Amino acid sequence: MGYVKWSYQVLEKFCYEAFRAFGFSDEESKDIEDVLLMADLYGIESHGMQRMVRYHKGIEKGTIHPQAKPEVVFETPVSAVIDGHNGMGQLISIFAMKKAIEKAKTTGIGMVTVRESNHFGIAGYYAKMASDEGLLGMACTNSEAIMVPTFGKKAMLGSNPIAVAMPAEPYPFLFDCSTTVVTRGKLEMYNKMGKELPHGWALGSDGQESTSAPDVLANIVGKKGGGIMPLGGDREVSGGHKGYGYGMLCELFSSILSMGVTSDKCCTFPDKTGICHGFIAVNPAVFGDPEAIKKHFSDYLEALRESPKADGAEKIYTHGEKEVLAQKDRMEHGIQVNDNTMAELANLCDYLKLDFSSYFKDYQLQRDSKFFTGNY
Amino acid sequence: MGYVKWSYQVLEKFCYEAFRAFGFSDEESKDIEDVLLMADLYGIESHGMQRMVRYHKGIEKGTIHPQAKPEVVFETPVSAVIDGHNGMGQLISIFAMKKAIEKAKTTGIGMVTVRESNHFGIAGYYAKMASDEGLLGMACTNSEAIMVPTFGKKAMLGSNPIAVAMPAEPYPFLFDCSTTVVTRGKLEMYNKMGKELPHGWALGSDGQESTSAPDVLANIVGKKGGGIMPLGGDREVSGGHKGYGYGMLCELFSSILSMGVTSDKCCTFPDKTGICHGFIAVNPAVFGDPEAIKKHFSDYLEALRESPKADGAEKIYTHGEKEVLAQKDRMEHGIQVNDNTMAELANLCDYLKLDFSSYFKDYQLQRDSKFFTGNY
Repeated sequence: MGYVKWSYQVLEKFCYEAFRAFGFSDEESKDIEDVLLMADLYGIESHGMQRMVRYHKGIEKGTIHPQAKPEVVFETPVSAVIDGHNGMGQLISIFAMKKAIEKAKTTGIGMVTVRESNHFGIAGYYAKMASDEGLLGMACTNSEAIMVPTFGKKAMLGSNPIAVAMPAEPYPFLFDCSTTVVTRGKLEMYNKMGKELPHGWALGSDGQESTSAPDVLANIVGKKGGGIMPLGGDREVSGGHKGYGYGMLCELFSSILSMGVTSDKCCTFPDKTGICHGFIAVNPAVFGDPEAIKKHFSDYLEALRESPKADGAEKIYTHGEKEVLAQKDRMEHGIQVNDNTMAELANLCDYLKLDFSSYFKDYQLQRDSKFFTGNY
Repeated sequence: MGYVKWSYQVLEKFCYEAFRAFGFSDEESKDIEDVLLMADLYGIESHGMQRMVRYHKGIEKGTIHPQAKPEVVFETPVSAVIDGHNGMGQLISIFAMKKAIEKAKTTGIGMVTVRESNHFGIAGYYAKMASDEGLLGMACTNSEAIMVPTFGKKAMLGSNPIAVAMPAEPYPFLFDCSTTVVTRGKLEMYNKMGKELPHGWALGSDGQESTSAPDVLANIVGKKGGGIMPLGGDREVSGGHKGYGYGMLCELFSSILSMGVTSDKCCTFPDKTGICHGFIAVNPAVFGDPEAIKKHFSDYLEALRESPKADGAEKIYTHGEKEVLAQKDRMEHGIQVNDNTMAELANLCDYLKLDFSSYFKDYQLQRDSKFFTGNY
């Protein structure tokens, strides 16, 4: 599989115009594009341009309703519940996190849960919305079942990511991880490379470990059992029950407190996915001087980065650092998109009656070149 | 090593009277005893009677100040910061969680952070205080550094447990886990048994995996480097950076938002440990009908327990179920205490001028018997 690099501006323009063509407003299209491109800039390729095909399919199939607007169905000064009416996950989520931020600025804390939404992209985007405003932010989402609970053989929880962001210098702390060992995207990557899966990742339909990517993926798609292990693996000795617990924490703040669809039932409906989210914003000022807290946190993060490295290791990261480095690199040198994704974008252009070649000039001509660098 | 079983009532009386003899009031002694014995009832032996020696030593050394009273140093309707003045961790924590609960009942959410405290026992106790009142409860604490960050070789975070409790039928959800793969207690157990540590648990002073319990423990005590891996292990391929991230989440809600001592510095002072905690209570009523939410959650927990088992597995647990089963068993059949701990309790009696044999009748006489069952 070859790759091609495009500048941020090329992808931004394409992405914006594609969502405009789907019928989203100017502001809505910009918001969706911003969430997707942040994933690509951060190096989380599975959630950027690669994901366009899923939104395309979701709108085509009718599980994503582009015209739906989020509605606040329950509210207090510190909380809200939002019914997304099965609209675009990014728009519902930006609406919800803005509400959490507004509440945190007024009362100190805002917790907003969302039901009847759709895939929202990277959880970190919404957590970072809060930290950009000087707040501690958290975001989580459930999803189609993929995590098998400890001692089980059927996926009952989603990949259930939890993201946390907090202001710090020289860059904010940004933790954004699934509560499974890995996400499905990693399995797909191994499948494409024809490689055995590492130990401690996946389970076959019998609930025993499987290192066969094609088998595991086929079982997941066919709902034949098995799936991905919780963080910590499939046994208590390595702490698998802990990852399963963090997955439950995510479920609590998304599907439970919103009275929404739990992961075991997500994506089993013809006209919706039922995906739920949770958003929390906390104003550090309700615990003292925010600048002093930020300094205290930054000092600790620095102490972590400067602590002695394992023999052979070059660097200790704090969460969010890799994303900052990736963003800088991609803004300078372009964003890598693989040929499969380019083909999906070409199909999308056909569907939306957009001119593929007007965005991705000369791409067709050099399609077979492994390191064609597009117009960048 | 032999074990002896005592009834809950025997241990309760002893524990209460020991803390009375340390100078704690009637109510304070009952509170401390209740936290410690819940650990034993739940089968978390490392945090019950076995821990008495550490409180004994802490008071003797002067890192625990029995007369200190917690003080609210910052407060808003949704939050508070408490300075524990290095008192007994359990008393400070009960005070703090009560405050979080009171706020959650008034405003919907209460977040309370604590600095200058001490080891507080099991985090789950405080989370459960909230769920006993119909609320979602969370509790976390930092501790002496034992977790090595990904690519590091020096422990910089504590075992940093996070506990979450939420009302459900037939019993509450109660998740209470360290963010390390295992706790130090597990390493000590393997050391006593003379067994190699399982892979994926511990690091030597060079930051590479070590399966030698005596080496790792000696390095930890001597602060020579190494320690325990984050949940997910020491590499990114198995998600070690995720466990490290959850450890940071715990640090954020304990030491950072309280402006307290971070784990890398905890327990390095002559007159305090500096340990910090965080407590959160959320009233489900700020998201809708609490009974409907409880039912929705209980249904999901039941679906998890009833989902297909892995081949060879008998049962899928939901978090808190094992504790309920253990409590029932121990109330009926007694609480197991090992001979080492009994010797520590005898020393404690000497120190406090209490009559050991008045609590643990006939114990001395049959000290060598492996399965002596005490007075039970």
